[in-house]
Amino acid sequence: MPRIAYFGPSGTFTEMALAKLESLEAFEGPVERVPAPSQGAAIDLVRAGQVEGAVVPIESSVEGSIAPTLDALALGPRLQIFAETDLDVAFTILGRPGVALEQVRRIAAYPVAAAQVRLWLAAHLPQAELYTSASNAAAAEDVAAGHADAAVSTSLAGQRLGLTTLADGVADVDQAVTRFVLVAAPRPAPARTGSDRTSIVLELANEPGSLMRAFAEFATRGIDLTRIESRPTRTGMGTYRFYLDCVGHIDDTAVAEALKALHRTAARIRFLGSWPATAATGTPPPPDAPAAAWLADLKKGVADL
Amino acid sequence: MPRIAYFGPSGTFTEMALAKLESLEAFEGPVERVPAPSQGAAIDLVRAGQVEGAVVPIESSVEGSIAPTLDALALGPRLQIFAETDLDVAFTILGRPGVALEQVRRIAAYPVAAAQVRLWLAAHLPQAELYTSASNAAAAEDVAAGHADAAVSTSLAGQRLGLTTLADGVADVDQAVTRFVLVAAPRPAPARTGSDRTSIVLELANEPGSLMRAFAEFATRGIDLTRIESRPTRTGMGTYRFYLDCVGHIDDTAVAEALKALHRTAARIRFLGSWPATAATGTPPPPDAPAAAWLADLKKGVADL
Amino acid sequence: MPRIAYFGPSGTFTEMALAKLESLEAFEGPVERVPAPSQGAAIDLVRAGQVEGAVVPIESSVEGSIAPTLDALALGPRLQIFAETDLDVAFTILGRPGVALEQVRRIAAYPVAAAQVRLWLAAHLPQAELYTSASNAAAAEDVAAGHADAAVSTSLAGQRLGLTTLADGVADVDQAVTRFVLVAAPRPAPARTGSDRTSIVLELANEPGSLMRAFAEFATRGIDLTRIESRPTRTGMGTYRFYLDCVGHIDDTAVAEALKALHRTAARIRFLGSWPATAATGTPPPPDAPAAAWLADLKKGVADL
Amino acid sequence: MPRIAYFGPSGTFTEMALAKLESLEAFEGPVERVPAPSQGAAIDLVRAGQVEGAVVPIESSVEGSIAPTLDALALGPRLQIFAETDLDVAFTILGRPGVALEQVRRIAAYPVAAAQVRLWLAAHLPQAELYTSASNAAAAEDVAAGHADAAVSTSLAGQRLGLTTLADGVADVDQAVTRFVLVAAPRPAPARTGSDRTSIVLELANEPGSLMRAFAEFATRGIDLTRIESRPTRTGMGTYRFYLDCVGHIDDTAVAEALKALHRTAARIRFLGSWPATAATGTPPPPDAPAAAWLADLKKGVADL
Repeated sequence: MPRIAYFGPSGTFTEMALAKLESLEAFEGPVERVPAPSQGAAIDLVRAGQVEGAVVPIESSVEGSIAPTLDALALGPRLQIFAETDLDVAFTILGRPGVALEQVRRIAAYPVAAAQVRLWLAAHLPQAELYTSASNAAAAEDVAAGHADAAVSTSLAGQRLGLTTLADGVADVDQAVTRFVLVAAPRPAPARTGSDRTSIVLELANEPGSLMRAFAEFATRGIDLTRIESRPTRTGMGTYRFYLDCVGHIDDTAVAEALKALHRTAARIRFLGSWPATAATGTPPPPDAPAAAWLADLKKGVADL
Repeated sequence: MPRIAYFGPSGTFTEMALAKLESLEAFEGPVERVPAPSQGAAIDLVRAGQVEGAVVPIESSVEGSIAPTLDALALGPRLQIFAETDLDVAFTILGRPGVALEQVRRIAAYPVAAAQVRLWLAAHLPQAELYTSASNAAAAEDVAAGHADAAVSTSLAGQRLGLTTLADGVADVDQAVTRFVLVAAPRPAPARTGSDRTSIVLELANEPGSLMRAFAEFATRGIDLTRIESRPTRTGMGTYRFYLDCVGHIDDTAVAEALKALHRTAARIRFLGSWPATAATGTPPPPDAPAAAWLADLKKGVADL
Repeated sequence: MPRIAYFGPSGTFTEMALAKLESLEAFEGPVERVPAPSQGAAIDLVRAGQVEGAVVPIESSVEGSIAPTLDALALGPRLQIFAETDLDVAFTILGRPGVALEQVRRIAAYPVAAAQVRLWLAAHLPQAELYTSASNAAAAEDVAAGHADAAVSTSLAGQRLGLTTLADGVADVDQAVTRFVLVAAPRPAPARTGSDRTSIVLELANEPGSLMRAFAEFATRGIDLTRIESRPTRTGMGTYRFYLDCVGHIDDTAVAEALKALHRTAARIRFLGSWPATAATGTPPPPDAPAAAWLADLKKGVADL
Repeated sequence: MPRIAYFGPSGTFTEMALAKLESLEAFEGPVERVPAPSQGAAIDLVRAGQVEGAVVPIESSVEGSIAPTLDALALGPRLQIFAETDLDVAFTILGRPGVALEQVRRIAAYPVAAAQVRLWLAAHLPQAELYTSASNAAAAEDVAAGHADAAVSTSLAGQRLGLTTLADGVADVDQAVTRFVLVAAPRPAPARTGSDRTSIVLELANEPGSLMRAFAEFATRGIDLTRIESRPTRTGMGTYRFYLDCVGHIDDTAVAEALKALHRTAARIRFLGSWPATAATGTPPPPDAPAAAWLADLKKGVADL
C-alpha cells in the first residue's frame, strides 16, 4: 500500500484533496495517508524515500500559484507530477461550544485564511479582534485551548475537536478553487488521454527577447499555454524562473518538439510531468499524424505529393 | 508638507524605505509620515485623499512580487508610481532584556519573516518554539508583552521598545533586497532621465498566442522587459493579469508606441507610471530621433534619402 | 503642360496606361506624351529632368514584378510613385492585309508576348514559324516590312500601320492584368485617401531571421503586406533586395512607425511612395486616434484611465 | 546509361553545366546528353519519362530566379532536385570570319543576353544596330546565316559554327553566376552531407501575417533561409507562390519539423528536394541529438534530469 504524504494534521484542505484523488482512482488501490507538518515537509518525505508520493496545493484561483510548492519543485532533486484535482475552498467558522456568533470577541485565523475572509469578518464580526494562528488547523486548536472564541478553519477540524459550526462556506470570493497535485519520484508519465497538461520550469538567458522566443516555441507549434508564473530565482532583482503549463502531453509530437527546442535554447529546463487534466482547458496541440505520414512519403520518394 | 502613508507602526522596513526616499529627495521638501495598519490601508488612504502618497513594497528578490500591492494597484481607481528605492532586508533578533540567545525557548515571528530565517533558526535556536505574530513590529511587541523570549524583527522596533539585540543582519539568503515604491494620484510622470522604468498592468483576450503577441509589442520595438509577473484575475482558474516593467519612459517614442499598440489590442491596460530607476537595469529603448528626422524629410518630399 | 514619358512608340500598352491615368485625372490637366525607346529610358528621362514623370509597368498578374522597373527604382537617384492604374492585357493578332489566319506561315512576336500566347498559337497556328521581334510594336512593324505574315501585337499598333485584326483579346491566361505606375521626382505624397498603397525597397543584414524581423514590423502593427518581391542585389548569389507594398499611407501612424523601425534596423530602406490604390486590396492599418488620445491623457496625468 | 536532357543545341551554358555535373560525379557513371528546344521542354521530357533527368538553370546572381524553371517545378507532376552546380556566366562575342570588331554594324543577341552586355556594347560597339535572336545559340546561327556581323553568344557555339572570337568573358556585371540544378522524378533524397540545401514551394492563406508565420517556422527552429522568391500564382494580382531554400536536409530533424508544420498550416506545400550544396551558405540547423536524448530519458522517467 503506497504511502502518500500531505500537509496535516488530519482534516486540512490538503487531506480533502488527497481523499478526492483516491476516489478518482489516481492511485492503484488504497493508500496510507501520512501527515506532514508543512507542504515542504511533505515533499521532503518523497525525496527522502519515506513516502511514495505527496499531495500539495499548486495554484489557487484567488491567491495564484503556491510559491513554496513551486520553489520545492524547481529546486532539489527532480520530482514529477502525476495527477491533479481541483477543490472548492471555503472556510468554516468554528466556535467554542456555547458561544454564538454575535458573542465572538476574538477570532483565530491563519493569515492566509484571514485575507480570504476579510470582507466576511468586516460584515459579520466587525468588533472581533484577530488572533494569529499558525495554520487553519491550529486556529481550531487555539479555540479549543481557549486562546480565542472562534476560528476560521475547516469543517473537518471542527469535527475532530468537537467545535460548533457558526458559519459554513465562508469566502470573500465566490468559487475559490485550489488545485492540488500528486508529486512523486520520476517515472514514465501516465498515458496520454487527449486532455492532458504538461508542466515545466524554465530559466532563460538574461537577453532582451529571450522570453518571447521561449513563448514562440509554443505559439509557433499551436500549443496553448495555460499557466505562466514567474518567480524570482533569488540570485538578484529581476532574474526570474518561469513555471509554464501547456495543454498536451510529452507524447504529443508538438509538445515533444517544443520541449526539445527549449532544451537547446534555455539556460535551464526542468520537466515537471504530463498528466490528465481535471477539466478541458484550452486547445489541444495539433495532431502530427497527417504531416508525419506526408514526411515519411517524401523521404521514401513517393511521387504524387 | 505632504503626508505620506506607510505600513506602521514606526520602525518597519517600509518606514525605513520612506526615510531613504526622503534622503534621496524623492519628495519636494519634508513630509509628514502617516502610519497605516497594513500595506493595503496605506494605499486606501491615498485613494481616500487623506494622504498625498504612500510607500509600499512591490517586489522582493527572495519572495517575488508583493501580491497585495500588485492587486491594490490593479484594481480600484488608478494610482501611479513616481519613485522607487531598494532596501537590503535583514532581520534583527530582539530579546527580552537579560535573556541570552541560548536561553530563548519561544521566539515570536511574523510568518513571512519566519520563512526567511528558517535556516538561521534551525542552526541557532533548534529547540525554540515558534510563536506566530501579526507583523514584524508585533513580534517585538509580543516579546515586550511576555508572550515570547525573543522576536524576529527590526532594529528600529528594538530601539522603540527597549529590547536587546541578540543578532543582526539575519537572513537565510544573502543580499535579500526589497523594492519599495511611492504611489500617488495620477499626474504627469517625472521627467525622463534616460534610465527610467515604466510599469503596466495587462489583461489579455483568452486566445492562444495573445501573450506572445503582447510581448512582441515590446521585443519588436527593442524594449527590454525587466519584470513579468502573472497573478490570477480571480475570475476562474487560468485567467491572469500581467504586471510588466520595462526599461524606458512614456516619453520614449518606442515605449509610447508599445503602450498605444497594447491599448488597441489588449482586453485591458493600466499605466502604473514612468519613473527614474534606482539602478540601470537592461538596455534603454532605441532612440527615435534619426528615424523621425528621416520620416519628416520623406513627408516633405526631400529627394536625397 | 507636364511632359510624361512612356515606352513607345505610340500604341504600346504603356501608352494605353498613360491615357487611362489621364482620364482618371492623375495629372493636373493635360499632359504632353513623350515616347521613350525603353522602360528604363523613360525613367532616365525623369532623372535627367527632361520630363516631369514617366509611366512604367511594375507588376503583371501573369509574369510577376517587372524586374527592370524594380531595378531602376531601387538604384540611382530616388524617384517616387504617385499614381497607379491596372490594365487588362490581351493581345491582338495583326495580319498583313489580305492574309487570313489559316494562311499565316510566319508570326512575329516579342518573346514576352510569345510566352503569353503560347497555347493560343499551338491551337490556332500550329504550323506557323515564330519570328522574334524587339517589341510588340516592332512585331507589327516586322509584318509591315514583310518579315512575317502576322504579329502578336496591340490594336493600336494595327491602326497605326493599317494591318488587319485576325484575332482580338488573345491571352493564354484569362484576366491578365498589368499594373502601371507614374513615377516622378520626390515631393510630398498625395493626400491620404484611406485606401492607399505604400511601397519600399529594403536591404537586410545577412543574418538568420532578419527578414522575419522585418516582416514582424508590419505584422505586429497590423499592417497588411500586399506585395513581396525579392531580387538579387547582384553582389553575390543569395543576397536579396526586397520590394514590399503594404496597405496604408505614410500619414497612417502605423505605417510611419513601421518605416521608422525599418530605418533603424535595415541595412538600407528606400521609400518609393504612398499613393491611392486603384482597388481596395487588403485591410487598412488600425486607426491611431483612440490610442493616441489615451496616451495624451496619460501624459497629462488624467486619473480615470 | 541515363539520359539527361538540357536546353540545346550543343554548346549552351546549360550543356556546360551538365558537363560540370558529370565531372563532379553527380551521376552514377556516364550519361547520354539529350538536347531539348527549351528549358521547359527539357523538364517535359523528364515528366514524359523519355529521359531520366534534366539540367536547368534555376537562379542567376544577376537576373534572379529563372521564372520558367520555377513555374515548371511548381506546377504539373512533382519533380525533385538532386544536385546543383554554379557556372560563371560571361559571353563570347563571335564574328563572321574576316570581320574585325570595329567593322561590326549589326550584332545579333538573345534579349536576355543583350541586357547583360548593354554597357559593354555601348562602350565597344556604340554604332551597331541590335538584331534580335531567339537564343544565344541562334545568335551565332544568325551570324552564320548572314543576318548579322557578330553575335553575343558562347565560345562553344563559335567552335561549332567556325566563327571568330572577337571578345571573351564579356559581362557588364563581374562574377555573374548562374546556378543549374538536376531535376528528376521523385526518389529518396541524396544522403545528408551536413552541407545541404532543401527547397520548397509554398502557397499561403490570404491572411495578414501568414507569410510571417511561415517564416517563423524556420526562424524559431534556427533554420537559415537562403533564397526567398515570390512569383504570382496567376490567379489574380497580389496572390503569390513562394520558393524557399533553406540550409539543411529533410533528414535534419529541425528541417523535418518545419516541413511538417508548414504541411499543417500552408494552403499548399511542395517539396522540391534536399541535396548537397555546392558551397557552404549560411548556418546549418541545430543538431537534434542532445535534446532528443534528454527527451527520451524524460519519457523513460530517468530521475536526474
